[in-house]
Amino acid sequence: MRLSQFHLHTSKETPAEAEIVSHKLMLKAGMIRKLAAGLYTWSPLGLRVLRKVERAVREEMNAAGAIEVLMPAVQPKELWEETGRWEKFGGQLLKMKDRKDAWYCYGPTHEEVITDFARNELSSYKQLPVNFYQIQTKFRDEIRPRFGVMRAREFLMKDSYSFHVSDEDLNREYRSMYDTYGRIFTRLGLKFRAVSADSGAIGGAVSHEFQVLAESGEDAIFFSDGSDYAANVELAEAISPGPRGAATEAMRKVDTPHQKTCEDVAALMGITLDRTVKSVAVMGTDAEGNPQFVLALVRGDHAVNEVKLGKLAGLAGYRLATEAEIAGHLGSEPGFLGPVKPAKAIRIVADRSVAAMSDFVVGANEKGFHLAGVNWGRDLPEPDEVADIRNVVEGDPSPDGKGTLQIARGIEVGHVFQLGDKYAKALKLTVLDANGKAATPVMGCYGIGVSRIVAAAIEQNFDENGIVWPEPMAPWQAVVCVINPKNDAAVAEAAQALYRDLNAAGVEAALDDRGLRPGAMFADIELIGIPHRIVVSERGLAAGTFEYRHRQASESENLDRTGVFAKFGK
Amino acid sequence: MRLSQFHLHTSKETPAEAEIVSHKLMLKAGMIRKLAAGLYTWSPLGLRVLRKVERAVREEMNAAGAIEVLMPAVQPKELWEETGRWEKFGGQLLKMKDRKDAWYCYGPTHEEVITDFARNELSSYKQLPVNFYQIQTKFRDEIRPRFGVMRAREFLMKDSYSFHVSDEDLNREYRSMYDTYGRIFTRLGLKFRAVSADSGAIGGAVSHEFQVLAESGEDAIFFSDGSDYAANVELAEAISPGPRGAATEAMRKVDTPHQKTCEDVAALMGITLDRTVKSVAVMGTDAEGNPQFVLALVRGDHAVNEVKLGKLAGLAGYRLATEAEIAGHLGSEPGFLGPVKPAKAIRIVADRSVAAMSDFVVGANEKGFHLAGVNWGRDLPEPDEVADIRNVVEGDPSPDGKGTLQIARGIEVGHVFQLGDKYAKALKLTVLDANGKAATPVMGCYGIGVSRIVAAAIEQNFDENGIVWPEPMAPWQAVVCVINPKNDAAVAEAAQALYRDLNAAGVEAALDDRGLRPGAMFADIELIGIPHRIVVSERGLAAGTFEYRHRQASESENLDRTGVFAKFGK
Repeated sequence: MRLSQFHLHTSKETPAEAEIVSHKLMLKAGMIRKLAAGLYTWSPLGLRVLRKVERAVREEMNAAGAIEVLMPAVQPKELWEETGRWEKFGGQLLKMKDRKDAWYCYGPTHEEVITDFARNELSSYKQLPVNFYQIQTKFRDEIRPRFGVMRAREFLMKDSYSFHVSDEDLNREYRSMYDTYGRIFTRLGLKFRAVSADSGAIGGAVSHEFQVLAESGEDAIFFSDGSDYAANVELAEAISPGPRGAATEAMRKVDTPHQKTCEDVAALMGITLDRTVKSVAVMGTDAEGNPQFVLALVRGDHAVNEVKLGKLAGLAGYRLATEAEIAGHLGSEPGFLGPVKPAKAIRIVADRSVAAMSDFVVGANEKGFHLAGVNWGRDLPEPDEVADIRNVVEGDPSPDGKGTLQIARGIEVGHVFQLGDKYAKALKLTVLDANGKAATPVMGCYGIGVSRIVAAAIEQNFDENGIVWPEPMAPWQAVVCVINPKNDAAVAEAAQALYRDLNAAGVEAALDDRGLRPGAMFADIELIGIPHRIVVSERGLAAGTFEYRHRQASESENLDRTGVFAKFGK
Repeated sequence: MRLSQFHLHTSKETPAEAEIVSHKLMLKAGMIRKLAAGLYTWSPLGLRVLRKVERAVREEMNAAGAIEVLMPAVQPKELWEETGRWEKFGGQLLKMKDRKDAWYCYGPTHEEVITDFARNELSSYKQLPVNFYQIQTKFRDEIRPRFGVMRAREFLMKDSYSFHVSDEDLNREYRSMYDTYGRIFTRLGLKFRAVSADSGAIGGAVSHEFQVLAESGEDAIFFSDGSDYAANVELAEAISPGPRGAATEAMRKVDTPHQKTCEDVAALMGITLDRTVKSVAVMGTDAEGNPQFVLALVRGDHAVNEVKLGKLAGLAGYRLATEAEIAGHLGSEPGFLGPVKPAKAIRIVADRSVAAMSDFVVGANEKGFHLAGVNWGRDLPEPDEVADIRNVVEGDPSPDGKGTLQIARGIEVGHVFQLGDKYAKALKLTVLDANGKAATPVMGCYGIGVSRIVAAAIEQNFDENGIVWPEPMAPWQAVVCVINPKNDAAVAEAAQALYRDLNAAGVEAALDDRGLRPGAMFADIELIGIPHRIVVSERGLAAGTFEYRHRQASESENLDRTGVFAKFGK
């Protein structure tokens, strides 16, 4: 590509509306242009990168045996009513009425459509397993679209859906997709982690997120420094710190008139936070559906994990207890709570690390007082339940017993789920099994945010001069820059020859023949993140050399033709 | 591709809802599956064909110097209000409201968006000319979606838009796109014609349609048997049949009490229809915007062309005159009208062929009478205006003077337009010209119905056994069919080797290893239209031959390996 024939349109200004670096750099580089909130046009430059991601995804999906289809973006309401999601999906679902007053939505995902396709296409176990995928435009009506294509409303996604006769076969395909995703992100040159994830509203029991690591990432990821264990904070397991120590202190009552937090109590007593216990009162329901008051205990230096707490029996949809409920059940007030002689029978759930404590400090359940030197079994009954109900923290032991947990930040770019029979059942998909009986297949679903990967890659790879593309995602591997092409025919000719020969050798090179001054030209090429820059100038030509510089190198080198080609292994 | 690993799903039944052959065959072959009215999922087989079309379009557009972008499907109302099309576009525009109650549409076309993109991206004449294109999903809310993907509501389109400093440069690019379209359809192996077309609602002065020829086509195309002239009926020019003959009869009044049509009058008088003149009364407006009564005259064997009539000065938006208006202006009633002594001053427009008539028959403008032996200048004043206002008919002389017009039927798959400054003006797009002054660029726009081409190709290429793909569009060039692969390892192995070797030689071959009986397998391969079929059987293997058959051949041939490869020029 000759840049004089290409629409490259960079900008020096930093756009005011952009909050994160990828959004800023994509606008400055002219990769995208905003049409309306969360709607972007991909310019020729941006589209080159997007297509590279799309191609890597397609080729790896094909290699893994998935089969490409293309479903409509517009989906009829009736199908979404069969799964109950027309109402449940919420405000992200963009709904519309056609000229016949029939309702449709712009598909944010395609479980309904693919399962409907499958119930027409699949009739026998012999057609299974099968994994259908598509690379297609989706729409989610975000409350606050922002960060450019990172959280756009209209975006490009690869979504795939597999169908199986058994959970074992689903597990096999799930593992294959997990590995395929790893190959895709590795091939794109990205640093990433696959993390165990809570599957949330999509349903299903097992799921993993693929996170591109970047300091600006919205999601915290915990990973082991001694194994490949990784999980997001909702799912990372906090294991017991070890056996409980022996009691060495006697229990005593401490006067804490104004000390209502663990921090205040620890400061007053001159002890560390991990000697204190925090008591959090919530209201859930018991097995019969009656209100149930629960006191959740975590160490003073830990935080309750709401998702983990919500997984305890009867606690889906719990809420914090009111002061009146606290007074009624505990006979005390917030700030001094503890699992001590409650006024009514309550459910007490201790975090694993709390169950392992000895000689600890806890609220006395009496206004103005805490208890110190407390020990389970001696001063208080053993807790009713011990469970993992806290957020892990950096330095926790890895739950697989290898190493300790470290924290990183990531941007979710992929997600794999085991859906089980949720959609197949709702849409009444069955196939005949080997015995001729109708059986409900189990499904997996596997998504990749194709357009989001472009932004995530920039969040991971940039410097003060612009984007630093991983080579597989760069618009071009190399740019041949011509100094003064209009006034120096020999230089222009030499540059064109080099550009042609590089492409002929399989190097994807562009020719910057726009006739800009060197400073402006180099700034553009750095901003748009081209890995290899080769300058052809009169002086170089006289010396038989080209000025070569890698995007991440601090200095340029003068290389002869052979040296230039060697940079590409040619 | 091994078909045992591919989701091929043909059907023996002829689907009841399908009215045309391409729709029937696409459903039977399992290329598409209906989701809802005008919404189709492309199956793996269908998508293979769609992608081949897409690729041919993309490669030829790139070769022509157009630059690919990707615009959002969802477009804000505000932009459509700037051009006035939010209201004017009509019911085909699918409108929707987002969670913030802002209105959007699902783009049926992208003139507004690309012009908005251009007004942000283009600021100088130096950036022109430029031609941006995209291959993207569009939606038109058809009143009656039908014929499968031929007239779907959601469809894949290539649309491009070029920007120029001058009409001359627009002409140059228009010609380049015209030629590019020819290359695309030729490359796809389609028989087509480029026809002059009325540009209709999109605006602009010059336009051509690209029509794939097929007997089932909706559009009539007139083409010359002596040149490459072709035009649709709206635009095909009807030239004068030659100089007017001399008067040989005297004018006489004929009693036609019940003869209100040219047919009836000709039958009564025993003359041919081309001796009669039909008078059509319409109401338009004059230059000042006042109502104007017009009498349009065409030969009895011809029909008024509404589009041509609408192009006469003052006649945009005309309508048929009412009986009261006719009585008021002509003093007569329908059935006996003619350009004879009108009651008020009226505008008389004669078609060119009418102006060339002598000794003709026309209404006497008096109930129950016609005039015969009429001659212009002698019996009636020469007509006020002579113009081309009729439909051409087969056998008319070609307007370029070479040959006569023939009729064919076609399916519109592409359209090129010169838009002029319509959109640039409405959206206030300007660039600085060479003198530093703001100038409004002129635009061209160029569309191809990517998904429609698939259906159109089938309408042109099928037989009683199914689809007969032009080789460039076939899902695979060849299929290697294995007889009894499960019970005959030697045959299976030989077939796999041939399949591998063909692909290695650059022949896109599939392997039908599904284990079907030969009859069912061959019926499938014929139905899906694969050009080359190669059967590997035990008997053939023993004789060292393969059974080769071309999709359009009536007999198969036994060929050795060399013979098979020779069929592909290898």
